[in-house]
Amino acid sequence: MKHLLDINNLTAEEINQIYTRASEFEKGIRKSNHLNAHVATMFFENSTRTKMSFEMAINKLNANKYDFCADTSSLNKGEDLYDTINNLCAIGINAIVMRHSDNNLIKELASKKYYQDISFINAGSGTNSHPTQALLDFYTIKKHFLTLSNITLTIVGDIAHSRVAMSNIALLKKFNVKIRCLAPENLIGEKIEGVEYHTNLKEAFNEADIIMALRIQKERIQEHIDIESYIKNYQITKDNLPYAAFLMHPGPINKNIEIASDVLEMQNARTILHQAKNGVFVRMAILDMLLSAQGL
Amino acid sequence: MKHLLDINNLTAEEINQIYTRASEFEKGIRKSNHLNAHVATMFFENSTRTKMSFEMAINKLNANKYDFCADTSSLNKGEDLYDTINNLCAIGINAIVMRHSDNNLIKELASKKYYQDISFINAGSGTNSHPTQALLDFYTIKKHFLTLSNITLTIVGDIAHSRVAMSNIALLKKFNVKIRCLAPENLIGEKIEGVEYHTNLKEAFNEADIIMALRIQKERIQEHIDIESYIKNYQITKDNLPYAAFLMHPGPINKNIEIASDVLEMQNARTILHQAKNGVFVRMAILDMLLSAQGL
Amino acid sequence: MKHLLDINNLTAEEINQIYTRASEFEKGIRKSNHLNAHVATMFFENSTRTKMSFEMAINKLNANKYDFCADTSSLNKGEDLYDTINNLCAIGINAIVMRHSDNNLIKELASKKYYQDISFINAGSGTNSHPTQALLDFYTIKKHFLTLSNITLTIVGDIAHSRVAMSNIALLKKFNVKIRCLAPENLIGEKIEGVEYHTNLKEAFNEADIIMALRIQKERIQEHIDIESYIKNYQITKDNLPYAAFLMHPGPINKNIEIASDVLEMQNARTILHQAKNGVFVRMAILDMLLSAQGL
Repeated sequence: MKHLLDINNLTAEEINQIYTRASEFEKGIRKSNHLNAHVATMFFENSTRTKMSFEMAINKLNANKYDFCADTSSLNKGEDLYDTINNLCAIGINAIVMRHSDNNLIKELASKKYYQDISFINAGSGTNSHPTQALLDFYTIKKHFLTLSNITLTIVGDIAHSRVAMSNIALLKKFNVKIRCLAPENLIGEKIEGVEYHTNLKEAFNEADIIMALRIQKERIQEHIDIESYIKNYQITKDNLPYAAFLMHPGPINKNIEIASDVLEMQNARTILHQAKNGVFVRMAILDMLLSAQGL
Repeated sequence: MKHLLDINNLTAEEINQIYTRASEFEKGIRKSNHLNAHVATMFFENSTRTKMSFEMAINKLNANKYDFCADTSSLNKGEDLYDTINNLCAIGINAIVMRHSDNNLIKELASKKYYQDISFINAGSGTNSHPTQALLDFYTIKKHFLTLSNITLTIVGDIAHSRVAMSNIALLKKFNVKIRCLAPENLIGEKIEGVEYHTNLKEAFNEADIIMALRIQKERIQEHIDIESYIKNYQITKDNLPYAAFLMHPGPINKNIEIASDVLEMQNARTILHQAKNGVFVRMAILDMLLSAQGL
Repeated sequence: MKHLLDINNLTAEEINQIYTRASEFEKGIRKSNHLNAHVATMFFENSTRTKMSFEMAINKLNANKYDFCADTSSLNKGEDLYDTINNLCAIGINAIVMRHSDNNLIKELASKKYYQDISFINAGSGTNSHPTQALLDFYTIKKHFLTLSNITLTIVGDIAHSRVAMSNIALLKKFNVKIRCLAPENLIGEKIEGVEYHTNLKEAFNEADIIMALRIQKERIQEHIDIESYIKNYQITKDNLPYAAFLMHPGPINKNIEIASDVLEMQNARTILHQAKNGVFVRMAILDMLLSAQGL
């Protein structure tokens, strides 16, 4: 692996390698010292979990951490981003963890030539890809289920604008998980082969093992969205959540919109914070593999 | 100790334990390696001294430092602060150093349940509490006086809006220091038992061993304040400062408002920078105790 | 050396000492551990290269890194910068890397008395001085030329507003490099003794060994500047760049203004990224010398 850009670039085998390593970090049986590695975070969109999780992964790998802040950078002097990154590369940055509102920018950047080796890690691109989120989600799922055959997972919420949904679907398909998507018509987006689409909650939740709720992303939704109607028909409540289902959410949660707040007190919802915890180990594994591939 | 929220939660004995440890750090006879501890600063109000002092304390304890920046966080996506912190906790943050304009928020947050152990340290809350400032102030005082009995300390300035005054009064009372407060009527605030209140500088400064000046906090004062009249009646000058008194100030100083700038050249004023220096050791001691209590 | 403020304060011998040390860092034959040193960056103007380069230098020296952010500091409460820095000094900051729009502020600050030893490093001041840029530029030049006698270097662009030009001219004069400046009349600024001034590109580029392009600094130029006419007469192109000349640029580049973008693909332009790379070693050398002089 040279970069981590998208789930579609990964084979099931590579994903399992990431998980083996993540699990070793989690159990404390693997330690890595990347004292000569220099990793920069470059977030052009807001973040709490993902950014802090990567920062912790960098620290736990004993690598050097840099935060590139676009607001006070030379981008304000008219420099283009490729030139900025090529300069960071010349200065000695070995890996860039980037979040950006553009769907394709990170792929374009990763395909260019740089002064020396540099790895790109996609920490969320536009509405299409958030591979480390999907990887940590499935890592969390794998820890909870003895077998993955016959699992049904229902994604509910703003599928159309969700890079989390896109990456999860791509990943779950590789492992033959049965995927349902539930949303009002205007939030379903383009349909993907092999996925069941529902507009009725009862049908979509029936015998589901995992409910993966998404955030209603007010900042990305341009169509009119009727929140009252969404809540009435799609909010997860104590009444409609299947008894034994794991409830997942990438965070941040809009309480009492996609999930009724009392649901968050239930045992089913503990998975949500496990996701946050597991993210660190998965990101450590990814960074460790990319930096090691560079000989760092 | 699980948190450091307020002076009122501390016994005199606990305070002395903090000071013993701070003194050991100052003398270089104690070293701590909290390599597995992850501490985040979370400042919702401006700060130079306190934030930098905590950052240095974190570094000197060999802990991992994180800066949570509200402006670029998921708080902008509608997440509430408890959820944000619980996620940071799941990610692996062990302690949060927080400054906030709300008087009670940090206590409320500290009283809640989290994914795993997490300690809160109050780095200034609203107008009521700034415990590490009071602790470093009194640590500075203790180093200068062989005995604390019969010491008189006069706090002068905007008592009403000062969390520094509130915390100092709470702490000084525990050690039986004679406390006077000096301010114009409208900046005196609610009177506290056991404290002498003055509106006349000459009386308040008479035979005082320590003068503790406060900043006129323009950002918190909503009432009309007559700066000219304040300067005329309450500014500390070469003429009114008692000859042998120690002059203290938590900083930042509005020069020529609460203190005439030439006073800052006097030997009496050297204490002000000693306060800044001592703060690092006191904060090291506090963090060291809280992290050790977590087994880190 | 106590500070690094300006090229004019340095002798040729001191510059050579910096280069010897930088070269040792580059070759990996010198390692420094400044574990007890605390270095703060303080940038009041945008920066990518310089700030990241200093951050990497601090990390590679194993010193502790702090970022002072003016926006969230007590400067917003009315504190003056000297007091802020004196407090940072008392807290334990040993060196300050400062960029500021004021030409003289850093010199004034460095001339004052502080609580304890503190070193100032000028990372760009106003329009007059950017010593570490000049030092890394000449370090890059020295690596490429067996002998420096008879070298001709042409600086082209906005000489009048360029601290890079000022510092480079001061440095190149110490080493007897033949210097030409090329710019339209209104961007030439005050003429310096020993420098040839040109308004005609062909003459200025004739037999030049090095072309050093400057950025057209739109944020500093108050006079009307005719970009179309600048491009027509002064843009560096494949046609006018001397065949064997090294092309340098401090970055960021306004592509297709000062340099045609296809020129950047040429072998001649590789020097630009070497500059970025070399900056880290030169800054390591400077910080190492200043911190060592403090016994850190």
